[in-house]
Amino acid sequence: MRLPVLIALTVIIITSTIFYRLESSTSSKKRDYVLVIHGGAGFVANTEDKEKIEAVTNGIRAALELGNEMLKNGAKSIDVIEAVITILENDSTFNSGRGAVLSMTKEAELDASIMDGSNLNAGAVGNVRIVKNPIKAARSVMDKTNHVLLVGEGAEQFAISQNLDIVENSYFVTQQNLNEWEQRAKLEKGGTVGAVAMDKYGNLAAGTSTGGMMRKMHGRIGDSPIIGAGTYANNNSCAISATGWGEKYIKNAAAFNVHALMTYKNLSLNDAMKEVMYKILDPKDGGMIAIDKNGNYSLIFTTQAMSRGIATSDGIFEIKIWE
Amino acid sequence: MRLPVLIALTVIIITSTIFYRLESSTSSKKRDYVLVIHGGAGFVANTEDKEKIEAVTNGIRAALELGNEMLKNGAKSIDVIEAVITILENDSTFNSGRGAVLSMTKEAELDASIMDGSNLNAGAVGNVRIVKNPIKAARSVMDKTNHVLLVGEGAEQFAISQNLDIVENSYFVTQQNLNEWEQRAKLEKGGTVGAVAMDKYGNLAAGTSTGGMMRKMHGRIGDSPIIGAGTYANNNSCAISATGWGEKYIKNAAAFNVHALMTYKNLSLNDAMKEVMYKILDPKDGGMIAIDKNGNYSLIFTTQAMSRGIATSDGIFEIKIWE
Repeated sequence: MRLPVLIALTVIIITSTIFYRLESSTSSKKRDYVLVIHGGAGFVANTEDKEKIEAVTNGIRAALELGNEMLKNGAKSIDVIEAVITILENDSTFNSGRGAVLSMTKEAELDASIMDGSNLNAGAVGNVRIVKNPIKAARSVMDKTNHVLLVGEGAEQFAISQNLDIVENSYFVTQQNLNEWEQRAKLEKGGTVGAVAMDKYGNLAAGTSTGGMMRKMHGRIGDSPIIGAGTYANNNSCAISATGWGEKYIKNAAAFNVHALMTYKNLSLNDAMKEVMYKILDPKDGGMIAIDKNGNYSLIFTTQAMSRGIATSDGIFEIKIWE
Repeated sequence: MRLPVLIALTVIIITSTIFYRLESSTSSKKRDYVLVIHGGAGFVANTEDKEKIEAVTNGIRAALELGNEMLKNGAKSIDVIEAVITILENDSTFNSGRGAVLSMTKEAELDASIMDGSNLNAGAVGNVRIVKNPIKAARSVMDKTNHVLLVGEGAEQFAISQNLDIVENSYFVTQQNLNEWEQRAKLEKGGTVGAVAMDKYGNLAAGTSTGGMMRKMHGRIGDSPIIGAGTYANNNSCAISATGWGEKYIKNAAAFNVHALMTYKNLSLNDAMKEVMYKILDPKDGGMIAIDKNGNYSLIFTTQAMSRGIATSDGIFEIKIWE
């Protein structure tokens, strides 16, 4: 075989390998606070242009630094989740807020959710097109309504009534996403963002925000705004944010499933995460990040990459994309 | 105290009593098929006009007869769920399809979902306003798309593309619901419909359809279209349809929770249902109906009433509202 053919074959073999990656830390002394962030699971070629890799790293770092500072200063986990995800939504590098992928109608249709593990309060919005920061709208649904999930026009009208920042849909649209839309790029483009935190008071919280799948049908909602599927937090077990093939996370109530395995089967956070990602979901479906009530964290993905960051009160401050 | 005062006090005491009701049947010989239907949990005064009670009973009976006949003739459970719920959606007695309660904007905003326990396939629509039978749209989402949940305009456009029956929103609106809207009637009006079935091939399926809560915010989505919250089906455990305070069912992934308790804690269907309704949810939150993989059924509610029907291959054919 000639060299180019060999190289091509090698690339195909490498990219079709099933990737399993679990990263976790248990600490004998309970940490004061912990923050874990993801910028989406998916395929990010190790060889991709340095600019992209730098943008992802910088985005995660900015969010991580802000969240770390807030938690150090005694902020509540629920406020940290909102602030951290807002930063990532404003960063066009990720598939949430500005930079979100485009639906079949060539628009950004955004989903987000947030949950407070101390009282199971939760809020979410789905299919919003003019709300600059869907995570803030989700927080407002939680705080200001007796509902959990508002979608579409109703969610937008509510966001307006709450004086949240409103933008044209074009604000979210980047040239790169337009190009990828035209090229019918892979449906499962990663980049969903999420965060889980434990604050100094021991309260857990979780949040997730996304533009969903490239070329998704108009009106499609994935797991990100579904409490129990893409997001879950319960002080008695853990806080979780998921990223990946949303429909499969919904059918398997993936985030709640981790809670259920810990609560009903007494599995550790790590073992519960492995059970859901390796046995219940299929290879390449995506990833999840989580913190348990003792401040142990766990990050897992079965895709080639998941951009992520960790900051803890005992000095861990890490940003990674692959291994 | 004078007699009218005494009577009034008695009524208050009776209506504020916490009602717990569990009805179940385990059969030593596995049944060929089972169908259980609910027409919603809530407050239905025993003294309410006979006309209403007759309408509820007739509606459940019509659905039960059709489903029983289909199952007897070898129909698949997923087809029975769709057919049975279609009947209830067309009946203005229930809070689904025609007869749905009205949102703050005085419109019917409909939610529905369906799930096939043999393969975990699922479909759902939320916040649709012109689709005559939301359960058919949910079925189409399951069969014809790679998504699980479509909402609002996108869901409506999809229903049109599938040649489903389209109606004006006024089709759903009854004079009674208009009156109750004006009177700011109780937010939690019951009447959500749902069905669970096991067919001759041992396959479980579940579905739920609703107009949600009276005076809900525009765009609000409850548990009914959320797989894992209002509906769940898995051949390895059970099929479930819920009715009640949707937001609480979402936060506790109520339907999936029953599956999780059976799967991870080896609880029986009955014990899992009791755990969720009596311990995880609060009194008066609502009810659930379910069938396990062995054809045992379980109906539970913590409200004053839940209209319901049961039909089995071994000759049970029952319709009840209270005890």
